[in-house]
Amino acid sequence: MTVRVPTSGSPSGTEGARPDDARRHNRSAVLRRLHRAGPCTRAVLAAELGLNRSTIKAVVDGLAESGLVSERLPSKRSGAGRPSLLVLPNPQAAVVLAVDIRVDRVSMAVVGLGGEILGRLSWRLKVGVEKPRDVLTRVLESAPMLASELGSLVVGAGVSVPGVVRRPDGLVREAPHLHWVDVPLGEQLAAGLRVPVAVANDAELGALAEHTRGIARDANDLLFVECDFGVGGGVISGGSALRGAGGYLGELGHMVVRPEGLECHCGLRGCWETEVGGPALCRALGLPADTARGELLASLRELDADPVEALGRLGEFAGWLSLGLINVVNLLAPELVVLGDPLGALPGPVLDTVVQRVAERSMVSRAIGHTGVVRSSLGRDAQLVGAAELAFDPVLDVAAGQNP
Amino acid sequence: MTVRVPTSGSPSGTEGARPDDARRHNRSAVLRRLHRAGPCTRAVLAAELGLNRSTIKAVVDGLAESGLVSERLPSKRSGAGRPSLLVLPNPQAAVVLAVDIRVDRVSMAVVGLGGEILGRLSWRLKVGVEKPRDVLTRVLESAPMLASELGSLVVGAGVSVPGVVRRPDGLVREAPHLHWVDVPLGEQLAAGLRVPVAVANDAELGALAEHTRGIARDANDLLFVECDFGVGGGVISGGSALRGAGGYLGELGHMVVRPEGLECHCGLRGCWETEVGGPALCRALGLPADTARGELLASLRELDADPVEALGRLGEFAGWLSLGLINVVNLLAPELVVLGDPLGALPGPVLDTVVQRVAERSMVSRAIGHTGVVRSSLGRDAQLVGAAELAFDPVLDVAAGQNP
Repeated sequence: MTVRVPTSGSPSGTEGARPDDARRHNRSAVLRRLHRAGPCTRAVLAAELGLNRSTIKAVVDGLAESGLVSERLPSKRSGAGRPSLLVLPNPQAAVVLAVDIRVDRVSMAVVGLGGEILGRLSWRLKVGVEKPRDVLTRVLESAPMLASELGSLVVGAGVSVPGVVRRPDGLVREAPHLHWVDVPLGEQLAAGLRVPVAVANDAELGALAEHTRGIARDANDLLFVECDFGVGGGVISGGSALRGAGGYLGELGHMVVRPEGLECHCGLRGCWETEVGGPALCRALGLPADTARGELLASLRELDADPVEALGRLGEFAGWLSLGLINVVNLLAPELVVLGDPLGALPGPVLDTVVQRVAERSMVSRAIGHTGVVRSSLGRDAQLVGAAELAFDPVLDVAAGQNP
Repeated sequence: MTVRVPTSGSPSGTEGARPDDARRHNRSAVLRRLHRAGPCTRAVLAAELGLNRSTIKAVVDGLAESGLVSERLPSKRSGAGRPSLLVLPNPQAAVVLAVDIRVDRVSMAVVGLGGEILGRLSWRLKVGVEKPRDVLTRVLESAPMLASELGSLVVGAGVSVPGVVRRPDGLVREAPHLHWVDVPLGEQLAAGLRVPVAVANDAELGALAEHTRGIARDANDLLFVECDFGVGGGVISGGSALRGAGGYLGELGHMVVRPEGLECHCGLRGCWETEVGGPALCRALGLPADTARGELLASLRELDADPVEALGRLGEFAGWLSLGLINVVNLLAPELVVLGDPLGALPGPVLDTVVQRVAERSMVSRAIGHTGVVRSSLGRDAQLVGAAELAFDPVLDVAAGQNP
């Protein structure tokens, strides 16, 4: 089947319900469950979604007729008796393109229904001099190559950008470390790829990725902190991603924590980013500000084996990191804070210090009992995984709504 | 009819839909619309909720049979022809108790369906020495008096507290300026009143009130800043109130903005609350820290007429207020910041300074185009109105779900 995604939004919660809403809702719920959590039996679907078995049968049969799922015997038998069929998402039934634009690198992947990365490629950028047009051209050239190998039609694309993005049309309002201002990336990519394109902030996608497929799957309230050069945050609250007005939520890097501190590119002084951003981390390690990520991570790994040296070099850094995290925990009350790369690669003793300070000094962490501060489990792939989920979101609704 | 509210939660979005969900959804949508936005015709209901007229007729007839709404001719005729009937919520059909506990005062009100305050009373507290037991006793004694005058059965209660509240059971975890710690206020009030009781943070209820019945009705993303002694924030994001883990979201007062600043009762140094809380405002005005609210507000009103004196006295205060607001705007990207009392009573030139600084210096405000910073329109009633809405929330669902 070909899945077509309309450009208009979905109905809001204030509207009335129409007759076939329930049927579409159930198809979408089953498809989302399979896409996010993987294959399972009809019985598990019925139990998890609170639907009776005949409804599940009708929904699964419909999705199978559409080619979106199939059923097969499990490869391992469990227990005696006839094994139950597993319902599986068909990866090739809906394929999306994920693009992760960073300050020093672009990564692309084709991701199938169910979340499997079916193909990928990446290339380096010259930091701060790469024009949006050049990145756009290369993405557009690479996309058909990636997709054609699979013989699959791409039905949507998601893009991660290290900057402030206007969500409705994917305008990159400001990506300071790329030196991009008002780049209509979403529109240009959509015109070139001829599929719906969603663009979002890298930290927001990190949060989405860790929430759907990473370490924060069980957390309803979480904060993902991204510090690839600049510092940003992605927030899931009550199970939903927060966007804020125009989609601009999460600029934690521009929280002033040291009014007499360094000047920041945003015009303020003493922003958190000036103390814990990529260049600040390099500074603390005695490396040049433009050190390649690989080298920075290697340097952090080395310190892992030497607690005294690690705390000596990164003690002050850990102090500012803790202070900002305490602020954000007091504001947002996450149950879990996930540190993206390179913060996620901080040496053990340094991370332990941060964890302990947040636990002891944040009023809200004390009230909750404990706010966890953990390393990202998806690492460098977090944004790519998040961009794919962003692209899948409308696809899952539409696919579920279409008749076989 | 008597509305009964179950204590368990409502079904989550991940569950499947059941046959009568659509009918209940529509009844609830109509009842909420009438409760929040006031009387209107069936045609307006149909248009706003996207339902056809026969569905609206069935829903309104059902709600009228339950006694929740009535229909009558408008008092003013508009245009020629037969005037359309207005559908009105019946205030006495569902009445809730709203309680606003402040550091220096408790206010109570009985509020009817549709949001009208049907009766109220209040009394002063001795700052910092009032025991939870004494407040509880007086609330329990006052409630029947307030309700019996109306001859209405109270179906729920909402309580505003200046502290960190665990939402599921209404435990007041920490209300620093009341010196309350771990007070099971929700459970004790529910036992005494024999109705469901919801307890929430005062700033959270301020946000809810301004969003449903105040200046922020059209804002989907807003921040309410409360500074009655301590400083707290209530956040509505994408139209929904944010809670965070355990309901502890919004402790903006304990965002460190001045690491070398004053010690705060929370154990940190330089919290925003130490620079812009009630005592800091009194300090800036040359008043004792425990100045009564009325006197403080009078002092602010006086300065309104003298811009030079106002900026002279409150210039530094405005600076710290702006800095904290810039931080929170960068984090949460609200389209509107509503200042509750007494911040909402700041002299015009001081407020203008704050508005201008946030507009110019916040990266996110610049990206959005402009983040409004405005005075609360409900003033001292914001928490009472919010507490009533908190109590009405489950009532509206249950009332809508019950058969006539």
